[in-house]
Amino acid sequence: MHKSTALLTDMYELTMLESTLKSGAANRASVFEVFCRRLPSGRRYGVVAGTGRILEDLLDFRFTDEELDYLRQSRIVSEETIDWLADYRFAGDIYGYREGECFFPNSPILTVTGTFAEAVLLETLILSILNHDAAVAAAASRMTIAAHGRPCLEMGARRTHERAAVSAARAAVVGGFAGTSVLEAGRTYGVRAIGTAAHSFTLVHDTEEDAFAAQIETMGPGTTLLVDTFDVEQGVVRAVAAARAAGGELGAVRLDSGDLVAQAFTVRKQLDDLGATSTKITVTSDLDEYAIAALGAAPVDSYGVGTKLVTGSGFPTAELVYKLVAREDSEGAIKEVAKRSKSKASHGGLKVAGRVLDETGVAREELIVSCQSWEQGRAALEERGARPLQVPLVLGGEIQAHDSVQEAAQHHVASRNELPYQAWRLSDGEPAIPSTMIDIFPGDDRVYDGT
Amino acid sequence: MHKSTALLTDMYELTMLESTLKSGAANRASVFEVFCRRLPSGRRYGVVAGTGRILEDLLDFRFTDEELDYLRQSRIVSEETIDWLADYRFAGDIYGYREGECFFPNSPILTVTGTFAEAVLLETLILSILNHDAAVAAAASRMTIAAHGRPCLEMGARRTHERAAVSAARAAVVGGFAGTSVLEAGRTYGVRAIGTAAHSFTLVHDTEEDAFAAQIETMGPGTTLLVDTFDVEQGVVRAVAAARAAGGELGAVRLDSGDLVAQAFTVRKQLDDLGATSTKITVTSDLDEYAIAALGAAPVDSYGVGTKLVTGSGFPTAELVYKLVAREDSEGAIKEVAKRSKSKASHGGLKVAGRVLDETGVAREELIVSCQSWEQGRAALEERGARPLQVPLVLGGEIQAHDSVQEAAQHHVASRNELPYQAWRLSDGEPAIPSTMIDIFPGDDRVYDGT
Repeated sequence: MHKSTALLTDMYELTMLESTLKSGAANRASVFEVFCRRLPSGRRYGVVAGTGRILEDLLDFRFTDEELDYLRQSRIVSEETIDWLADYRFAGDIYGYREGECFFPNSPILTVTGTFAEAVLLETLILSILNHDAAVAAAASRMTIAAHGRPCLEMGARRTHERAAVSAARAAVVGGFAGTSVLEAGRTYGVRAIGTAAHSFTLVHDTEEDAFAAQIETMGPGTTLLVDTFDVEQGVVRAVAAARAAGGELGAVRLDSGDLVAQAFTVRKQLDDLGATSTKITVTSDLDEYAIAALGAAPVDSYGVGTKLVTGSGFPTAELVYKLVAREDSEGAIKEVAKRSKSKASHGGLKVAGRVLDETGVAREELIVSCQSWEQGRAALEERGARPLQVPLVLGGEIQAHDSVQEAAQHHVASRNELPYQAWRLSDGEPAIPSTMIDIFPGDDRVYDGT
Repeated sequence: MHKSTALLTDMYELTMLESTLKSGAANRASVFEVFCRRLPSGRRYGVVAGTGRILEDLLDFRFTDEELDYLRQSRIVSEETIDWLADYRFAGDIYGYREGECFFPNSPILTVTGTFAEAVLLETLILSILNHDAAVAAAASRMTIAAHGRPCLEMGARRTHERAAVSAARAAVVGGFAGTSVLEAGRTYGVRAIGTAAHSFTLVHDTEEDAFAAQIETMGPGTTLLVDTFDVEQGVVRAVAAARAAGGELGAVRLDSGDLVAQAFTVRKQLDDLGATSTKITVTSDLDEYAIAALGAAPVDSYGVGTKLVTGSGFPTAELVYKLVAREDSEGAIKEVAKRSKSKASHGGLKVAGRVLDETGVAREELIVSCQSWEQGRAALEERGARPLQVPLVLGGEIQAHDSVQEAAQHHVASRNELPYQAWRLSDGEPAIPSTMIDIFPGDDRVYDGT
């Protein structure tokens, strides 16, 4: 696998670069914006995730000899463009919502300013990261809401691409998950690694008793034993006995099949009858936010979530787009630009966004100001009492201090807690707060619409 | 990013290793099998994809000092286990269906034999690769069926994780796609890279005419121009004129919004009226297999597919599992093993599989023989006239010659062409052929079920 991230890019970014280098448009100051036209059907909010990964990958976005050789051999661009790429370093600015922030339709979650050439090249990589990570974080957030404080653990590595799995674990933590099964996420992001045992572990031993004893010998009685390989009731008896034989009380049992609600009650009663009142129950079979909610009244202590988490619980991509919203014209003035075709119309201009809270601290509106500069937009937000949502992530090509995964997770809790009650509902509905667009871009003929 | 793939692994694989090293079960000869209990709802067949990637990643599945340091610092396993991991090389065998082969419920698409310890460690990585790649390849296969020979092009990088995008492009080619937009897939797998231009390219220029002229200047009149940034009819006139001004006829126009069926007819007529009868039409807006089928009667020449392809068209993961099906007992005899809990019961024993064709060459049955050795199973297949489906991929730890992506794509066409007519239907239904399990494993008390 190549370390450079520069070819994680659609070919047309490079051919557009080539054409604009010829036409001269390459050097026009430009503003690109990441936003979504709508949230996935019925969702109440989105969750920004992946920002930190963009900043890491930006450092590796370099066209080294290996990348340039491929471009040369495949004749994708000319030698002039290859020379330009050899020196490429993004030298512009990136502003964005804090990682973990909730977002809504048209929220400008990332804004890239620079020349057209330097900014267009980042389109594919930025969208890949945000579309994937935001999809997983949104699912994670809904699941942690449904879990009402019980820990949720990420166990979906085997159900998604092996490298996506690492990023999914990271995004799950941003959305409130307490740990992950995937070790590379533990190493790379300092996320707590967790795990129990598989059915194969029981099956490779001669008896279930042998398997439980072997696990307890290395992991201690505080471990979690998988009790549903054969007969659950029998498994629970053996599990508790195995821990006690080692001089302790069993940490937890895991249920991975069957009717989890009914089983949780049965197993809890059985554990209590055995005197194992401190032994916990974790469940792990095909959970999503609805199954977790349905288990809310059952005596379950934690949830292990796989497939539905890493695939965004029905929405594996966040539908974020990266659009040119303003650029320099031939006289050097910045003009709003917008696509005018009917089904994909977009709003032009740099957007400065803030969240308007009411007197009780509840969010009421996403205020999005189309304007000509950060200063102008910020003033408009201040006037209206809105909390500014964008922070500088890259200035003049230099990556700025930014939130860790753990800080992003904390920020998500704060941002989510600010939302009105309906944001917490799992059922389909409208976005939790409306997005209001205000246009203070000066001038009348500002919109370039190709006419 | 770390090159080693060893930590793309669930933590429990390592703690199970540790416990079995203590209990002695680690060294038991074992057979693990990858299969699905069912196809995603209504699908007629699955497509094996990712096999070649498993073999590449196996070479990098090494616990180097960096991986061992993490395990030591996080106290996930003991020093004894860390010593064992430092020397780890998979030394067993892997057999599997050829990449591109169609599969059905219970098809044993990958079989890993070796000690429990060496085989259990590969579970997570193997499942991640196959579950992702098979999901994309299955979607690609349905789309290329719906396209009836018109080229399908992969353009979904921005809608999935940046590294998954590269593998998705590869899987799309296995499923019949003709090219990809993502350059890293071009470099890594020799897949044809393709691309047009984005709306931002038009918008950064002062006029649509300027943009078209700039693209044609570098790409030639044979390029594909995006004509729906402003007004499609106007765009088509300008596009044809721009190519002619450069002394050629335009290669193609791209439509990326609106009612594609109606627009294709309108634009085709307009192009023909302009005399641009050789100019092709490519469409790219939110396509899936159903939208492609609906465009079958429209004058469209190729399809660019994004979101729905890379997310498996509704089924982003293939539901494949990796199960222990046989292992040595304490006397050194190989015993079938199977989980007996009701909702996830599995079939024990090594499986040798073949496809039974009728006299016209049409597949009629997936024959799956539970047996004790490859020889025994092969003999049973031969007796019944079934084409053997498994080939050796790794023998004694040595990776064998295997299909390239292009060969896998060819094999997929051959395998799909063998299936009965109902396999080609997009509507929900039963698997195209039934899976028949035969058990010739000797002995009566062979099944270990924990009692």
